[in-house]
Amino acid sequence: MKIATDAAMGAVPLFNQELFELLCKNCPGHELRQAKPDQPLGDAEIFLGQPSVKQIMMSEHLRWFQVTSAGYTRFDTPTFRTLARERGIMMTNSSSVYDQPCAQHLLAFMLAHARVLPEAFRHQQNRQWQRDSGRYKSVLLNGQKVLIYGYGAIAKELIRLLAPFQMEIIAVRRRPQKSAEPVKVVGIAESDQWLGWADHVVNTLPANAESEYFFSGVRLGKLKQSAAFYNIGRGTTVDQGSLIHYLNEGTFAAAYLDVTDPEPLPPDDPLWTTPRCTITSHYGGGFRGEGLALGQHFVANLERYVRGEPLKDQIM
Amino acid sequence: MKIATDAAMGAVPLFNQELFELLCKNCPGHELRQAKPDQPLGDAEIFLGQPSVKQIMMSEHLRWFQVTSAGYTRFDTPTFRTLARERGIMMTNSSSVYDQPCAQHLLAFMLAHARVLPEAFRHQQNRQWQRDSGRYKSVLLNGQKVLIYGYGAIAKELIRLLAPFQMEIIAVRRRPQKSAEPVKVVGIAESDQWLGWADHVVNTLPANAESEYFFSGVRLGKLKQSAAFYNIGRGTTVDQGSLIHYLNEGTFAAAYLDVTDPEPLPPDDPLWTTPRCTITSHYGGGFRGEGLALGQHFVANLERYVRGEPLKDQIM
Repeated sequence: MKIATDAAMGAVPLFNQELFELLCKNCPGHELRQAKPDQPLGDAEIFLGQPSVKQIMMSEHLRWFQVTSAGYTRFDTPTFRTLARERGIMMTNSSSVYDQPCAQHLLAFMLAHARVLPEAFRHQQNRQWQRDSGRYKSVLLNGQKVLIYGYGAIAKELIRLLAPFQMEIIAVRRRPQKSAEPVKVVGIAESDQWLGWADHVVNTLPANAESEYFFSGVRLGKLKQSAAFYNIGRGTTVDQGSLIHYLNEGTFAAAYLDVTDPEPLPPDDPLWTTPRCTITSHYGGGFRGEGLALGQHFVANLERYVRGEPLKDQIM
Repeated sequence: MKIATDAAMGAVPLFNQELFELLCKNCPGHELRQAKPDQPLGDAEIFLGQPSVKQIMMSEHLRWFQVTSAGYTRFDTPTFRTLARERGIMMTNSSSVYDQPCAQHLLAFMLAHARVLPEAFRHQQNRQWQRDSGRYKSVLLNGQKVLIYGYGAIAKELIRLLAPFQMEIIAVRRRPQKSAEPVKVVGIAESDQWLGWADHVVNTLPANAESEYFFSGVRLGKLKQSAAFYNIGRGTTVDQGSLIHYLNEGTFAAAYLDVTDPEPLPPDDPLWTTPRCTITSHYGGGFRGEGLALGQHFVANLERYVRGEPLKDQIM
């Protein structure tokens, strides 16, 4: 097979060499080449990387492409889905590489909140021993209520990690199905009535036309005063101005954000200093060995492709 | 039964009223009174609180006392154990109240370390978007190695919470028994050889003559460079000067301490500003509802006592 990759594979350039070497070693009998940004892929049948929509449209021999991320916003349009269907192009993403780090990042946020760690960091900087405040504000996760928006790979992995805590969990998805699930799953319309129920509102929504500003001022205003809001999806799914307003007012308890709008967040953005707001710089999916895992995921899918088997993480 | 409690029940005075009301409501038919600090308990048969050793020795009618903490250092001596045996006094602690919050505190620490949260807090204060550094330094817990000192209630609860991460876990206890355990359990002597193996060294040791400065400069020096050290036991089990030295030198990666020596940690103690050292002010066992849980634990043990059944969390 003729396989093309792009120059900036993976989310972090750092990992590229590692990933490229893995591919060279594990794709014998295939022809591997690096594509030029935004240029047609020639006679390549397979592509791995972060292609532009235009690049895919210009490459007539392409049968399958895999993006080295969980997100695929630019392809998540009716136009592109129609094109892919008509031309018989398959698309996979790398969500099974990112579900574990993202779920662990979310649990780190939830436990940091339960154990009052952001406040402890500030007390330590002020050299203040604040035993009673920490004791009084800490909570057990056991029995608390979690509302998870988006019922994909990250949500399912988070639910698995939360099992020992015996929490009450409801997941929200665009189209709830009648299949048996380990948690209650509701649709978008019904989810609004659960916003005031949750102790933890977890946002894993991808960016697309439907999800833009999904967490509007109205929706965020429904959170209860003791609730924490988490975002590991995309910053554009949240009305950030309303979020800042509510945190300043104490309408709900805290926000933990791995994604913001825009990114990188400019130094003068008021979000940086909003009270009870903890920010990590969009690295929730990262982990040592990320490049290797991306490569292994691709090689495993390549083997499936060659054998004509269904691909893992197939989107279209 | 005649039951005495002391004036400062529980670790936090805040919870006292709640706890006292619960006892009054749930101990009908028993006579409940408050003891004076360090005074004999008169004809009380049962005591709940934080008695002094002298107080227990002076109280000839006492048959059973329960301490409202997991720690019981002052009673953990050969002299007191002999006295309790000769006089037929039973002692229970409240470790089953504190195992869950302490284990959750430890997991919060472990995930904060894995997801580089202490650094993220500093970046946020400097309004710095540091995506690549976070991505590169983050690790998955999956498959990492954990060495837990002390194989009591906290360790067992932590092991339960860690199950979904499929880590390699070894627990260390004073006297390993031949019973079937969910993890490998080794004795103190053997544990030294595992110190350089672990990614996470978790200290849950109580304070007693054997554990004082157990984590000596020699032992801490065996940790590997990427390892993190956690302490939720007692500050006196660690040679804090050596710990500070190693963290300054980068001998191992980080420390997460809920307990220090002394407590409260004085504002001028160098530990506060030691690099890669995160401190919480001995509130790992705290949680909203702590007083109620202490009371419920006592009431349940009181019912067992009345029926002549074995008590929960019995130490002697």
